[in-house]
Amino acid sequence: MDGFLQEAKGLLAELVALPTVSAEGRALEAGAAKVAELLEGLGLRAELHEGYGPPVVYAEGGEGEKALLFYNHYDVQPADPLELWETDPFRLVERNGAWYGRGALDDKGELVARLVALRLFRERHGFLPRVKFVVEGEEEVGSPHLEAYVRDRAEALRAQAIVWEAGGVDAKGRPFLYAGLKGIVALELRVRTAASDLHSSYGVVVENPIYRLAAALASLRDAEGRVLIPSFYDRVRPLTPLEREALAEIPDETEALRAALGVRGFLGGAEGPELYGRLFTEPCVNLNGFHAGYGGPGSKTVLPAEAFAKLDFRLVPDQDPEEVPGLLRRHLEAHGFHDVEVVVLEKGERPARSDLAHPFVGLARRALEEAFGQKPVLYPNMAGSGPMHPFLHHLKAPAVGLGVGYPGSRVHGPGEHVRVQDFERGTLALLRLLELYFLGR
Amino acid sequence: MDGFLQEAKGLLAELVALPTVSAEGRALEAGAAKVAELLEGLGLRAELHEGYGPPVVYAEGGEGEKALLFYNHYDVQPADPLELWETDPFRLVERNGAWYGRGALDDKGELVARLVALRLFRERHGFLPRVKFVVEGEEEVGSPHLEAYVRDRAEALRAQAIVWEAGGVDAKGRPFLYAGLKGIVALELRVRTAASDLHSSYGVVVENPIYRLAAALASLRDAEGRVLIPSFYDRVRPLTPLEREALAEIPDETEALRAALGVRGFLGGAEGPELYGRLFTEPCVNLNGFHAGYGGPGSKTVLPAEAFAKLDFRLVPDQDPEEVPGLLRRHLEAHGFHDVEVVVLEKGERPARSDLAHPFVGLARRALEEAFGQKPVLYPNMAGSGPMHPFLHHLKAPAVGLGVGYPGSRVHGPGEHVRVQDFERGTLALLRLLELYFLGR
Repeated sequence: MDGFLQEAKGLLAELVALPTVSAEGRALEAGAAKVAELLEGLGLRAELHEGYGPPVVYAEGGEGEKALLFYNHYDVQPADPLELWETDPFRLVERNGAWYGRGALDDKGELVARLVALRLFRERHGFLPRVKFVVEGEEEVGSPHLEAYVRDRAEALRAQAIVWEAGGVDAKGRPFLYAGLKGIVALELRVRTAASDLHSSYGVVVENPIYRLAAALASLRDAEGRVLIPSFYDRVRPLTPLEREALAEIPDETEALRAALGVRGFLGGAEGPELYGRLFTEPCVNLNGFHAGYGGPGSKTVLPAEAFAKLDFRLVPDQDPEEVPGLLRRHLEAHGFHDVEVVVLEKGERPARSDLAHPFVGLARRALEEAFGQKPVLYPNMAGSGPMHPFLHHLKAPAVGLGVGYPGSRVHGPGEHVRVQDFERGTLALLRLLELYFLGR
Repeated sequence: MDGFLQEAKGLLAELVALPTVSAEGRALEAGAAKVAELLEGLGLRAELHEGYGPPVVYAEGGEGEKALLFYNHYDVQPADPLELWETDPFRLVERNGAWYGRGALDDKGELVARLVALRLFRERHGFLPRVKFVVEGEEEVGSPHLEAYVRDRAEALRAQAIVWEAGGVDAKGRPFLYAGLKGIVALELRVRTAASDLHSSYGVVVENPIYRLAAALASLRDAEGRVLIPSFYDRVRPLTPLEREALAEIPDETEALRAALGVRGFLGGAEGPELYGRLFTEPCVNLNGFHAGYGGPGSKTVLPAEAFAKLDFRLVPDQDPEEVPGLLRRHLEAHGFHDVEVVVLEKGERPARSDLAHPFVGLARRALEEAFGQKPVLYPNMAGSGPMHPFLHHLKAPAVGLGVGYPGSRVHGPGEHVRVQDFERGTLALLRLLELYFLGR
């Protein structure tokens, strides 16, 4: 193994050993301290910024006027269900050419790739370029404080470009990059119809909360997935010609995606560019859960007193997560669902997308193409969400995501891993991006 | 306390001490043996009939041509949640003029009232009239074998009238009787859309099982509760003039019922005779439970792979529980819900209603009026279900329900009890019914 892979494995093992599960508040101080130590080891000045949830690790250093900001996070998802892991999730293990462990990719593996790429840059070119790191500790619980953090420190964070937390290769091994993330807002709908559960024989004269909630949910979208809430689409920014072009150039892997997800087909029968257009650039409402009444074996003749559903809206530029609960409430009122209560579970994240015409997008494409020896796939936007908006908004700089994963990495699941070959080429692509950005060659 | 109340309390204590929970298969043999012993003690010949689930206790004896059949059951509901009982549910306790314990009313208290009424009859008139008892051990789990039992033994069970398992006084202390029970069939609807749960960011292109199931459930009824399944009402027998008259004579306790149930109002704003008409003589679909995806605190961005709902249909004469699943399937198909699977959870019970013009109904009314000193309320039908149909169908005899409970008895709940005053007057009403039926005076 190349020297830098040995070094990377050692650093990653140190990080994975800390069970920094933000949902459980575990080992976050220790995780922040370790990240700061590794950044200091690279020759940067690292600080732990308090007052925004778990400590935010901020680091900067290097030479030159132009700065590049890396966004990463040191927290991870819970390791449950533990019994599905073949080895201890908090001990890095190499097996079949891959490094296994919780966070081995998301996002500790990505962070280590950046550290190593910077070390390689310094070895090769004799200096550290001007970089900044924001490594937060609550990305896996929705980054509730990051917007305030970036707003408060916009001046210090200023950079001319941003490298987003993650990326990698697609199912066919093609490198990819992306320039946007959807927004999200998570809500709960609740209906209570009686003081307590009743015998179901009363169901002929007493309202049923499952019926009310089911009817309310059924009113939110049509059979093809289009949201029926008035004004929901009003702020959706039309796609630019470059964005449409990028969507059209995404290799058509409709059938492979269908098989990988284990579904019969896609909403509205979408495939190819239409499928990718929906997946990456259309908003939607998702139903995450619905619970009411009896759920055990056999039957129970109960008329439940209450029902609740959890849902999230995925948003695209320029939709506003703070507007959605109000639109939803008005829609429910207009349909007579005065009895359906809307509760906002999380403040949400705004959608964000960088301008594909920005030169930094071109540099990142070129870096990937040179490192991988093939043309990368450019996603104008990912289907998922993340706290990209405050960076774009306050720093007025573009963000591009690229990294070291692959679709089988089992991010958030048991057996999370990063393949050594992906790590190696992804790191070398980061190195090329540093060279192109800072040296212009 | 009168001698017969002391005797009743002793018998009831013996029965309550046996935790005959059919859902848990507990103490059913012992319960059957104890019931047989008590019936033998009365001078009847008792037998335990095997091959129909827990033993059916059958007893007969007494003098005369004309027979009266009592239907009761010795099994009870589980005592959970135990922590809400002030005393051990399986030890009879007298407190504040009431007897507390699981089954103190349903149905052990009712059974004891009948034993005591028969003993009083014999003491007063010097002989035991010709009676039969069918006391089953799985009423609380839907009486799955009783239809076959009654069919197989129709000749032996033959009687000219049947006294159903339970009854009592209403919230205002008025005695009541009833002549019918609804039928029921319990089903589950299931939807699976993917091989496993997915990240909710795929919700913009992948079908959501909660949406599918919610839309399917919303299609089953309208906002007022009317079932929208074609042909569902086809077999509903029109009410007779006597049934309509009985409904109209039910004292209007709309507001008291509303308050007792803890609801804002009734479906379609029904009240008075309209409310009672719906409650007692209209069929409906009930949603007992709906479960899918995440139900914990906060949000989780999951797209569940499956969803299920449990429902029961309450049926009125002459609807057929075996027909309902097919009607439901056709309805779902017609609405495009090919992906919604229909699973029958329980074979169901047929609806049954005795002819209100039958003289036995008049005798029961008169017995109650004389024992209570006030006109009883005649419900043509109850809102609940029970295995009355095989008796009416195979024995060609009417069934009337009357007994010793009151609406606060907490049947099936913690703190189940029977008030001693209700027990006393209910038992004396049974005694009067025996006299009117067997002696004609």
